[in-house]
Amino acid sequence: MDRKLRYGMVGGGPGAFIGAVHRKAIALEENAVLTAGCFSSKLEKNLECGNAYNIEKDRVYADYKVMAEEEGKRKDKIDFVCVVTPNSTHYEICKAFLLAGINVLCEKPLCFTIEQAKELSALTKEKNLYFGVCYTYSGYPMVKLAKKLVEDGEIGNVINVNAEYLQDWLIDEIGGGDQSTTKLSVWRTDPEKSGISNCVGDIGTHIENTVAYITGLHPKKVSAVLDSYGMELDLNANMLVEYENGVHGVYSCSQVCAGHLNGLAVRIFGSKGAIEWVQEDPNYLRVTKKGQPVQIYHRGTGYVTGRAAELNHIPSGHPEGLVFAVANIYHSFMNAICNKLDGKENTKDDLDFPSVDDGVEGVCFVHASVKSSQNHAAWTELL
Amino acid sequence: MDRKLRYGMVGGGPGAFIGAVHRKAIALEENAVLTAGCFSSKLEKNLECGNAYNIEKDRVYADYKVMAEEEGKRKDKIDFVCVVTPNSTHYEICKAFLLAGINVLCEKPLCFTIEQAKELSALTKEKNLYFGVCYTYSGYPMVKLAKKLVEDGEIGNVINVNAEYLQDWLIDEIGGGDQSTTKLSVWRTDPEKSGISNCVGDIGTHIENTVAYITGLHPKKVSAVLDSYGMELDLNANMLVEYENGVHGVYSCSQVCAGHLNGLAVRIFGSKGAIEWVQEDPNYLRVTKKGQPVQIYHRGTGYVTGRAAELNHIPSGHPEGLVFAVANIYHSFMNAICNKLDGKENTKDDLDFPSVDDGVEGVCFVHASVKSSQNHAAWTELL
Amino acid sequence: MDRKLRYGMVGGGPGAFIGAVHRKAIALEENAVLTAGCFSSKLEKNLECGNAYNIEKDRVYADYKVMAEEEGKRKDKIDFVCVVTPNSTHYEICKAFLLAGINVLCEKPLCFTIEQAKELSALTKEKNLYFGVCYTYSGYPMVKLAKKLVEDGEIGNVINVNAEYLQDWLIDEIGGGDQSTTKLSVWRTDPEKSGISNCVGDIGTHIENTVAYITGLHPKKVSAVLDSYGMELDLNANMLVEYENGVHGVYSCSQVCAGHLNGLAVRIFGSKGAIEWVQEDPNYLRVTKKGQPVQIYHRGTGYVTGRAAELNHIPSGHPEGLVFAVANIYHSFMNAICNKLDGKENTKDDLDFPSVDDGVEGVCFVHASVKSSQNHAAWTELL
Amino acid sequence: MDRKLRYGMVGGGPGAFIGAVHRKAIALEENAVLTAGCFSSKLEKNLECGNAYNIEKDRVYADYKVMAEEEGKRKDKIDFVCVVTPNSTHYEICKAFLLAGINVLCEKPLCFTIEQAKELSALTKEKNLYFGVCYTYSGYPMVKLAKKLVEDGEIGNVINVNAEYLQDWLIDEIGGGDQSTTKLSVWRTDPEKSGISNCVGDIGTHIENTVAYITGLHPKKVSAVLDSYGMELDLNANMLVEYENGVHGVYSCSQVCAGHLNGLAVRIFGSKGAIEWVQEDPNYLRVTKKGQPVQIYHRGTGYVTGRAAELNHIPSGHPEGLVFAVANIYHSFMNAICNKLDGKENTKDDLDFPSVDDGVEGVCFVHASVKSSQNHAAWTELL
Repeated sequence: MDRKLRYGMVGGGPGAFIGAVHRKAIALEENAVLTAGCFSSKLEKNLECGNAYNIEKDRVYADYKVMAEEEGKRKDKIDFVCVVTPNSTHYEICKAFLLAGINVLCEKPLCFTIEQAKELSALTKEKNLYFGVCYTYSGYPMVKLAKKLVEDGEIGNVINVNAEYLQDWLIDEIGGGDQSTTKLSVWRTDPEKSGISNCVGDIGTHIENTVAYITGLHPKKVSAVLDSYGMELDLNANMLVEYENGVHGVYSCSQVCAGHLNGLAVRIFGSKGAIEWVQEDPNYLRVTKKGQPVQIYHRGTGYVTGRAAELNHIPSGHPEGLVFAVANIYHSFMNAICNKLDGKENTKDDLDFPSVDDGVEGVCFVHASVKSSQNHAAWTELL
Repeated sequence: MDRKLRYGMVGGGPGAFIGAVHRKAIALEENAVLTAGCFSSKLEKNLECGNAYNIEKDRVYADYKVMAEEEGKRKDKIDFVCVVTPNSTHYEICKAFLLAGINVLCEKPLCFTIEQAKELSALTKEKNLYFGVCYTYSGYPMVKLAKKLVEDGEIGNVINVNAEYLQDWLIDEIGGGDQSTTKLSVWRTDPEKSGISNCVGDIGTHIENTVAYITGLHPKKVSAVLDSYGMELDLNANMLVEYENGVHGVYSCSQVCAGHLNGLAVRIFGSKGAIEWVQEDPNYLRVTKKGQPVQIYHRGTGYVTGRAAELNHIPSGHPEGLVFAVANIYHSFMNAICNKLDGKENTKDDLDFPSVDDGVEGVCFVHASVKSSQNHAAWTELL
Repeated sequence: MDRKLRYGMVGGGPGAFIGAVHRKAIALEENAVLTAGCFSSKLEKNLECGNAYNIEKDRVYADYKVMAEEEGKRKDKIDFVCVVTPNSTHYEICKAFLLAGINVLCEKPLCFTIEQAKELSALTKEKNLYFGVCYTYSGYPMVKLAKKLVEDGEIGNVINVNAEYLQDWLIDEIGGGDQSTTKLSVWRTDPEKSGISNCVGDIGTHIENTVAYITGLHPKKVSAVLDSYGMELDLNANMLVEYENGVHGVYSCSQVCAGHLNGLAVRIFGSKGAIEWVQEDPNYLRVTKKGQPVQIYHRGTGYVTGRAAELNHIPSGHPEGLVFAVANIYHSFMNAICNKLDGKENTKDDLDFPSVDDGVEGVCFVHASVKSSQNHAAWTELL
Repeated sequence: MDRKLRYGMVGGGPGAFIGAVHRKAIALEENAVLTAGCFSSKLEKNLECGNAYNIEKDRVYADYKVMAEEEGKRKDKIDFVCVVTPNSTHYEICKAFLLAGINVLCEKPLCFTIEQAKELSALTKEKNLYFGVCYTYSGYPMVKLAKKLVEDGEIGNVINVNAEYLQDWLIDEIGGGDQSTTKLSVWRTDPEKSGISNCVGDIGTHIENTVAYITGLHPKKVSAVLDSYGMELDLNANMLVEYENGVHGVYSCSQVCAGHLNGLAVRIFGSKGAIEWVQEDPNYLRVTKKGQPVQIYHRGTGYVTGRAAELNHIPSGHPEGLVFAVANIYHSFMNAICNKLDGKENTKDDLDFPSVDDGVEGVCFVHASVKSSQNHAAWTELL
């Protein structure tokens, strides 16, 4: 990647955590410059950001629609836009940029309805653009190693999946004395802002994506129990999954499990071995081959090969964290754009970033889960 | 306990692992002497055992029925019998000893059918005897501490349960090249010998019992998927559980999950905190109270109190293992017998051993699970 | 071992922790019967024990000297004596039984002075007896596996050793507010009762023994700093070690390190790999071969072979603890006695228990450490 | 920090790992722009870097001396220079920039001789500049929390220190068959390039700094054994330490300990509790208070306060790694510069970055260690 790309950002104003993560991740790649933006709906904050990020005044936009149109017309237009606005706005913003012929990388969830999701996917293909959805965890090198080991047949055929994503930051919502509802948690449990699901939509969908990424297994149907403990939306969910090939799995996600902060943990069991990866300790991969001692692989070592080695930033033993995982997603996304600009064909490996179709699958998964739970955990197919 | 009890054993011949565990566990208590036995259906082996265990010749029986009858008539009869025979024989043997007026401690599962189980329970009450079922894991001090913390309200109301029991010793059954079917595994997957379920019956039932012991929550209904991978009986199961109070949980058990040897792990999530206990590292308990650092409790320390402290054998930091857990079950069981012999009333704490009714619940749980799975994971009530 | 041995015990009265550990360990082996004893210097307690342990009245002795003499003369004399009295009395008691022609297994430390130690060693050989010293940790299967891996060259030549044994139970001795000095801790810091060293004598010596057992490396000289924090004897020690072959190591032991209960941890570094074993989690062995993932070996699995497999009691994944380690020492010790009684020669493997000479080395190690510390950490050779 | 700073870099050409770490760390702070540089002694590479980093041509310098002089004269001169060249060149480069009146942040080690080190320190004060030395590990939030807990008296008085820094990447240097000496390792064991020590100089000094940062304890003297296994310089070292207040500690560092990648682990033992931090899992802090369960603190949680909370970048449970630790050092360093530019006084907290005097202490520590080892581990005072 010798090119230097230009990018724009929608959302990510002062104090917005996720916008900062995206900017830092892109900065780690030293490959793209923030060139345009619509950072906040409040004029002053928007200008403040433009200033702080050294953006030329005429490319700080008060309205994302104007930004999409104007940028789409420029010769030196942004090469992609990064959408980090509230979830309820993803659909319309992404659509505007696609229509303007600009590649998009959007935070997850892609959007709220299956129809919208499929429309964005179709539009991406029609416009011949790249559309990434930030399923962060597939960016971790050890997740890429897990995928490789499965693909290489190291654990045989997958026979069972056990994955979970447990947090505890909404535990006060279910009572217990010292209520301390935060602004953040309130919108999380408001259907207007979160769509039809809170917990499955926010983190359950990460389980689905990470498992699919590693194993290539896509859920055919789910049998889900969502618990809302008297709130409008779910705070906890346990579900049985059947994949397209008939294999079964079990997923649990929660925002009310004390003692778990960001506990995504994925275990893939095969006929010859198993793999376990834990997000809070992401530089390790636990691999067990039948009849052998448990093995702990460490990121960055000589025996780690493939994409996990290519996307290694700092030497083994020096921990990388979440922002590097996001950087890896941008690395592939931006590299794919560069290749296209250079007239090169992108290989499957080049396109190693979560796509709009992964986003569609996520939305379908959320809808099936909610429907199943409403229907007393009846098996419900993903549409 | 100043009394020295006499006990008999049915099963536990040369090479029988579980019989040895029971004898060692009883020996650790230094409170009962093996006095009678019917160790093997093979005459020679039976006599050999009698000799090895220093048992008087006339109390080495070739037939358990004769043993029950004869011992029942003696003045110096055994105070209890320990039944460690193949699972398919538990019912008839236990029944014979109950009829003879002898207390019973039987390995799990109690028996194969719900009718048999309820019959044994009724008979126990009718005869006013003690009947223990060896759900081993409730004997661990840190499981007792978990129970106490829940009872004391330290984690608030239970809102979610996530428990699993994963092993990998039957992984060769599902193919993968180097088949090495053992004698042991063959009977495990034979309905004649294992009853209607292999995996749920063998280890899933331990999950049910351990969770019930700690939380007091009893499953009302289950939605289960059992995987048999072409074998007669299940080798893997994932299931949703609804307890009598409407709270939900998720259980997974397997004998084909590489990298797990005897992986019983129980996590109880409450409105104010959570508890995690892992059988392979049984001397610790992970406790998290809302808004506080994770705490690791160690067995035998000054801050561990209650039954967990009373049933502590060696100082903290010096690991105790499985056999001490079994010894603790015998401790309570034998103490209850002593109290009765001494004319003392047994308190609830005195009766802190898994009873025949726990055994009945286990059988009901297995039957509901199998029925649910046969019925496409439909919610199925425990009878 | 078809024979049933008879054994005697000196010490181990009511409430004595270590005596109970020895009795339980022997009981786990189902191979020896407690036949004689001198359990307490208090007549009543002594008789009470004799009664509790079902010992014939004429073999409950009020005086260990009488016991040694009388037992030595009997035709059905005890095959060995287990000495679990206060440390200050080990020398004279062991000597009495050796003189009476009775095999001895004594708790560590063997005794207090180098002269006494060497005298006991010489006497053992002169009398052609077996003398075990209970360096418990060499009895753990995974320590035996560590020894085997080193012997098999799996980690190449040993190039560095890092071992520690940290406890915190004497932390109140050094002040900090809520003093709660126990009876136990008082004698631990009294030279009359503990000899010239408390911490190094009590636990440092376990480090020395465990490392020597695994690696075959014997300290030639030490450079030690002992900290007593104003007490009479040491509570903490850090030391550099040079082995006979010139390789170096570092040992730390302490009874005042908060957060460590019985933290013996041994790391052996070789030119091709390394091994780590941690007493509080004794069923695992961490093995790293150069350029490969870290491997965690689990006790009882198929890939564990040799003595570690032979001395396996219960299946993998079901934790064994400290008492089984002691049982393994007795297993070898008693087996050696049986072989001798049967006229069989004992191989090196048969003699796989810590001997009186290991006890001598321990005493020399303690003396060198204390002398070095008194001499401002000057390198001090073991005599 | 509203200001945007300009910075220069010496070293950090294509493929230089450490230069990239510094650039990425500064980028994470979004507060300074790379404005000038002398990246490589090779003209072409130097220009290539200037181009890649968007630097104006006249500020890409072929010679660091010219760079120091020219930048020193500019009105829009760089606010600080980041020195990431080979260790042997640190002294002269840093000196040149100090003389030009430019603040310096230099990789460790500061330089090779005590004289040079003290000269740089004096020059810094004389010129009234800021000089940071990149002892990375003090930048981790949980190290800052450790410091705070010690300062707040949570573990009482420090009574013992046990710290280590183990790696294995030079294990091939000591033979073992498959030699694969890398270019990197060769210079590491060449005194011309590494100074008088390899292992202690490279990583031992990090132990010294991290312990001093957390506890405020400075080594008065050391008794060290350095092992070079036939190489010119040390690859392994074990040492006893006495601090200025008479308390003792033990340090181990190695580049040949298989199974350890970047294993800095620090344990601080106090009269009331203890603290443990492990660099490879940097988001946790293990804290044990006397008589209480072990506590695991997690970065980013509500109960973490002080500097550890202020320097938190992403939410708890989402791992931060090494580059964020370096970013934190730059954060404080750059903030101090901004304050000065703004005419504000810097408080002690504002100056929370490793200074030139910490660099001096590191050089003294290395010299004392080498001298002690040459003198048969004699106690050797730091000059």
